[in-house]
Amino acid sequence: MAKIAFIGLGNMGGPMAVNLVKAGHEVTVFDLVPAAVAAAVAEGAQASDSAEVAAKGKDFIVSMLPASQHVEGLYIDGTGLLDIVDKNTVIIDSSTIAAESARRVAEEAAKRGIKMVDAPVSGGVGGAVAGTLSFIVGGTTEAFELVKPILEAMGKNIFHAGDSGAGQVAKVCNNMLLAILMAGTTEAIGMGVKNGLDPAVLSDIMAKSSGNNWALQVYNPYPGVMETAPASNGYQGGFMVDLMAKDLGLAFDSAVKSRCSIPMGSMARNLFAMHAANGNGSLDFSSIQKMFADLD
Amino acid sequence: MAKIAFIGLGNMGGPMAVNLVKAGHEVTVFDLVPAAVAAAVAEGAQASDSAEVAAKGKDFIVSMLPASQHVEGLYIDGTGLLDIVDKNTVIIDSSTIAAESARRVAEEAAKRGIKMVDAPVSGGVGGAVAGTLSFIVGGTTEAFELVKPILEAMGKNIFHAGDSGAGQVAKVCNNMLLAILMAGTTEAIGMGVKNGLDPAVLSDIMAKSSGNNWALQVYNPYPGVMETAPASNGYQGGFMVDLMAKDLGLAFDSAVKSRCSIPMGSMARNLFAMHAANGNGSLDFSSIQKMFADLD
Amino acid sequence: MAKIAFIGLGNMGGPMAVNLVKAGHEVTVFDLVPAAVAAAVAEGAQASDSAEVAAKGKDFIVSMLPASQHVEGLYIDGTGLLDIVDKNTVIIDSSTIAAESARRVAEEAAKRGIKMVDAPVSGGVGGAVAGTLSFIVGGTTEAFELVKPILEAMGKNIFHAGDSGAGQVAKVCNNMLLAILMAGTTEAIGMGVKNGLDPAVLSDIMAKSSGNNWALQVYNPYPGVMETAPASNGYQGGFMVDLMAKDLGLAFDSAVKSRCSIPMGSMARNLFAMHAANGNGSLDFSSIQKMFADLD
Amino acid sequence: MAKIAFIGLGNMGGPMAVNLVKAGHEVTVFDLVPAAVAAAVAEGAQASDSAEVAAKGKDFIVSMLPASQHVEGLYIDGTGLLDIVDKNTVIIDSSTIAAESARRVAEEAAKRGIKMVDAPVSGGVGGAVAGTLSFIVGGTTEAFELVKPILEAMGKNIFHAGDSGAGQVAKVCNNMLLAILMAGTTEAIGMGVKNGLDPAVLSDIMAKSSGNNWALQVYNPYPGVMETAPASNGYQGGFMVDLMAKDLGLAFDSAVKSRCSIPMGSMARNLFAMHAANGNGSLDFSSIQKMFADLD
Repeated sequence: MAKIAFIGLGNMGGPMAVNLVKAGHEVTVFDLVPAAVAAAVAEGAQASDSAEVAAKGKDFIVSMLPASQHVEGLYIDGTGLLDIVDKNTVIIDSSTIAAESARRVAEEAAKRGIKMVDAPVSGGVGGAVAGTLSFIVGGTTEAFELVKPILEAMGKNIFHAGDSGAGQVAKVCNNMLLAILMAGTTEAIGMGVKNGLDPAVLSDIMAKSSGNNWALQVYNPYPGVMETAPASNGYQGGFMVDLMAKDLGLAFDSAVKSRCSIPMGSMARNLFAMHAANGNGSLDFSSIQKMFADLD
Repeated sequence: MAKIAFIGLGNMGGPMAVNLVKAGHEVTVFDLVPAAVAAAVAEGAQASDSAEVAAKGKDFIVSMLPASQHVEGLYIDGTGLLDIVDKNTVIIDSSTIAAESARRVAEEAAKRGIKMVDAPVSGGVGGAVAGTLSFIVGGTTEAFELVKPILEAMGKNIFHAGDSGAGQVAKVCNNMLLAILMAGTTEAIGMGVKNGLDPAVLSDIMAKSSGNNWALQVYNPYPGVMETAPASNGYQGGFMVDLMAKDLGLAFDSAVKSRCSIPMGSMARNLFAMHAANGNGSLDFSSIQKMFADLD
Repeated sequence: MAKIAFIGLGNMGGPMAVNLVKAGHEVTVFDLVPAAVAAAVAEGAQASDSAEVAAKGKDFIVSMLPASQHVEGLYIDGTGLLDIVDKNTVIIDSSTIAAESARRVAEEAAKRGIKMVDAPVSGGVGGAVAGTLSFIVGGTTEAFELVKPILEAMGKNIFHAGDSGAGQVAKVCNNMLLAILMAGTTEAIGMGVKNGLDPAVLSDIMAKSSGNNWALQVYNPYPGVMETAPASNGYQGGFMVDLMAKDLGLAFDSAVKSRCSIPMGSMARNLFAMHAANGNGSLDFSSIQKMFADLD
Repeated sequence: MAKIAFIGLGNMGGPMAVNLVKAGHEVTVFDLVPAAVAAAVAEGAQASDSAEVAAKGKDFIVSMLPASQHVEGLYIDGTGLLDIVDKNTVIIDSSTIAAESARRVAEEAAKRGIKMVDAPVSGGVGGAVAGTLSFIVGGTTEAFELVKPILEAMGKNIFHAGDSGAGQVAKVCNNMLLAILMAGTTEAIGMGVKNGLDPAVLSDIMAKSSGNNWALQVYNPYPGVMETAPASNGYQGGFMVDLMAKDLGLAFDSAVKSRCSIPMGSMARNLFAMHAANGNGSLDFSSIQKMFADLD
């Protein structure tokens, strides 16, 4: 079993750290919010007064932070963990951030002889609690093999996307595609319903035809079609519109920097941005259906 | 076994008629192109000099024509089959046309006591030959039950979408969603490749994540990822860009008439229209990938 | 002075007919709504019991009807005026309809030796009352010269766009561009305001720079910037969202039929369709600003 | 007359510096490219070996650099001019950069008691040479009044957009609107031409109607319509596609950071990005017409 420092105990990080504890690892946690630390300690983690103290003498550091600047701050610019940790500590950053930020930190780590991977997740809070997250990893094959057993304590699918930053790139591509699928699916169902079709019948036909996609399979956006989907529960829970909007902001950044044309992704991003501006930011992202159907 | 008239022996209609023959039905065919008739006769069909003659005294008429005006012409305005056929003949129109045209013909049929369904297909020429088409049927439940055994000789999945016209509505919704999925998938892969990812690795990750869709499952648009896909065969075969553009034109019509907003579908339609204008009309529709990646 | 039949006395047609009366012409009117006829008679027009009676023995017929089917019905399919009127009667259809409908009627007229132009207008109800409409005329140069003096009694700018149908094409192009300008202007102002700029200052800068366009010049969409604009009057009056949506539907039709790609126009159409679906159909079209700024 | 340091003598900066010389100012220049310095010296400027030396003891510093990082590097992170210059030196940064970068530098200047404005330009190389640029200034009213006489030696329209950063915001809004206008205008002309209209006739009609905008007035994108426009000169000269793409990248950044929805601007950005990817990056931006018309 490994000695692990876990930095960042938010909605995702908290249950992820607990799953490491449950797997038998020795986990030292740090977060700016004392209650978050207390909750992890109640599950068997050890508290630490600072990221620096937490990080010393560990086999692995796992970080789960909100945005690029926090990750760069933790490892380089502010706290500067890269100058503190042991050379054989392996760093896993599971935050969803810009690929170039991920690459910058990994390069600085490499200069100091430290192994680091970017390993953003998908699967939401439910997946974090259940330990069924997907991890999309960017880094060397050697580093990937080292971190894989650790990630398996928190997730089900562990993908190796490529070198440093590749985990972030693959995640932003996947989530952009997800936004496109979801918006497109709601539009198709909306047009069908407006023309007299039953949303469940149409969904079933498309799911068995070439329109088949993840939303139709497990996350139908029309209320009442799929009992377990957020749509049938007032669009509560699931993946918030505001978070999808954040990920699509990263897609915009990536497209500008790599000079890619992303017309479908841009369309989706603007729809989710409008939807958030209309006061739906904290609903599940499948609530974009409301734009394309007269729902109560 | 039934007596069936089959009108329209194009790339799709030809093999569909042959599958009816193979199933043991007595099939009389008509087409304006003598060679198409001869090909069907060689497989066991009987030739007819005109649609009128072919249609008389049959249990079923199946029609497979290019556009709304041809279908309205066959049954009402020109040839006027509705005034010729027996009252107990059941009509199956498998053309992909505007829902309102389908409804108009079905209403005229109903006035004369004749049962009619719209039953557009998906599955392409390959599916027509193999007898694995999907039929999406609009009409009464009674009519649906009558035509189902006939359609099963030509296809694998027989869906009942709703009343008259519903087959056309469901098909246009599905194909609009398909266009969105395909364009979105090519865009996501394009951005990934531009940022250093391997298209096969990225495709695999997304297919196992929330970006999963029909294109990633069986029709990967990036050359070399999926050996059997048109992308790995110079975008030959499959579903032509021009045909997708036609279906998206029907989606535009439907959106205007039903006052639906279809931003994602419109974006896809314009991309395929641009792609066709750039000389790619006869390639498979997954060649839209060329817009989003530097392919040879 | 000429003998003129005027068919269709709606919000636009009514005041147009009155302006012909005021110019000294002998005007016979017909409309299905008796009150509309009575209003024109009160201004000096002569009433007629039917379009047929009104049309006989006239120098000109002017029609102003809601949609393609009404125009085709008046001249060909229903009332069939083309078979009734004198050969030297010149027909002016000012309805906004599909170019192909305009061409169909003009061709039927030509077969009978009758001159006809399509002459859709812009300028709204205000322009109709004030006699300052723009007419965009499609037809031969000879016909254009004949109708020009008549149109000048109702409008200020009389354009010759080309042959039959060209008036409709030019109008749909112009109105599509107008929708793009307006939506784009509201988006630019919205982003400026969200980033702390004063909408009047930003509008002034763009009006004097390369962002200059008709909306910034005379129809500023942000409340309070331009006192006389609908935006400063609760988006009342002006050009209704529903009418803009109708014109953009014609643009969709035209793009599908001529296989044009219109990504900007499609984006605008979908925005106006969404805006209408959100209950804003009877507001002025500059109210699209509400999508891009937090207005009361 | 004032003592002015001018940093950055590119295509724009070079002629701007010369215009300051011509107006009688004492101008000391610096650029990393010796030939650029030599050209300015030939017109009467004084050379300097470094930005630090150039900046000392001056009334004004004018900088014209490619991107945010260069401006932040000059004033803060690298060269650190803010720690070198006199407190009464007034800084004018005419680079087109992110508003937040402009605000960061202005705030750092303010901390040191130094006045600074952001003053991005429009008008292109032609305007820089002719001294007819537009300057869009962000800063205090006091600073605006101080820099105005200096800017008038290089430009014709000097706008005060608001506080620090407002110049950049207004410029990005204007250029986003310009991209929308241009793309929309080419699409409208393209659809008209495809439907048989003469591009010059249609342009004239729209320029005199509600489709009127800057492109139709002075920069018609269709070859042959306007003799002086880049379109009539093989799309040479003017404002390069790559530069427009850069500005639209700033619009994306701004939209993401301020959570604005910009569907029309995004559509335009993706069209220009596609157009650049197709090898048109160094053509004038009105060459986007090639996407919407069959030009040679």
